[in-house]
Amino acid sequence: YTNTTEAFVIRNPGGRITTGLQSLLFVDTLTGGQALKDIVIVHHLDCGCTHITDDIIKDALKAKSPELGAEIDNIVFGTYSAKNMQQHINNIETDIKFLKDSPLVREELKERVHAYIFDLQSGKLIAVPTND
Amino acid sequence: YTNTTEAFVIRNPGGRITTGLQSLLFVDTLTGGQALKDIVIVHHLDCGCTHITDDIIKDALKAKSPELGAEIDNIVFGTYSAKNMQQHINNIETDIKFLKDSPLVREELKERVHAYIFDLQSGKLIAVPTND
Repeated sequence: YTNTTEAFVIRNPGGRITTGLQSLLFVDTLTGGQALKDIVIVHHLDCGCTHITDDIIKDALKAKSPELGAEIDNIVFGTYSAKNMQQHINNIETDIKFLKDSPLVREELKERVHAYIFDLQSGKLIAVPTND
Repeated sequence: YTNTTEAFVIRNPGGRITTGLQSLLFVDTLTGGQALKDIVIVHHLDCGCTHITDDIIKDALKAKSPELGAEIDNIVFGTYSAKNMQQHINNIETDIKFLKDSPLVREELKERVHAYIFDLQSGKLIAVPTND
């Protein structure tokens, strides 16, 4: 985290909302809604999280600890498969919908959700539309 | 995250293991146990997370969304009360025990857990013993 004139960066494997929501609600509640004015989702291309899925990680953990299958199944690792740009966009759209559907997120924040895919090779941000 | 010659930094509100374990297991499993050689827990003094508790955040969320009480109660925000150094140390010891008791964490990693409290004012790290 940086100072209050800059951005709160919630960095989590996969960049998924499901694993970042706890941090977002924490910061927003702690500051009485003063710290967060916008939500900016940024994924990047060629992330390990796009090649590995939660099932792959869960299967590896279950192979080591088969007796913990139920506990392992309950963990959300935030990975996703994205072999092309449309799949990246679909995943982000899923998360935007999750955010907007969540009654725990402030309505003002829902109006100010932005999303980008960061292309590491070109250094460019590709905007993903966030309107319904 | 940085490159593989450096440290994977899992930065989460409160610095608690309970909210960082998913990222730790993710990285360790994804890399087949090759990326993580040591676990270093670092808390810092005067963190907002030591003044606010999960109950305070949950009460604030429930006041806004009373119908979601059960869902809110299930969220782990990773905050803790620590008004003196001994309470900081107790919280870290609780997390070290949680790590060492978890059957999902590799035994080799459990042998290499280190913990520090970062004093922002002096810039010094205070070591917390990690032996049983």
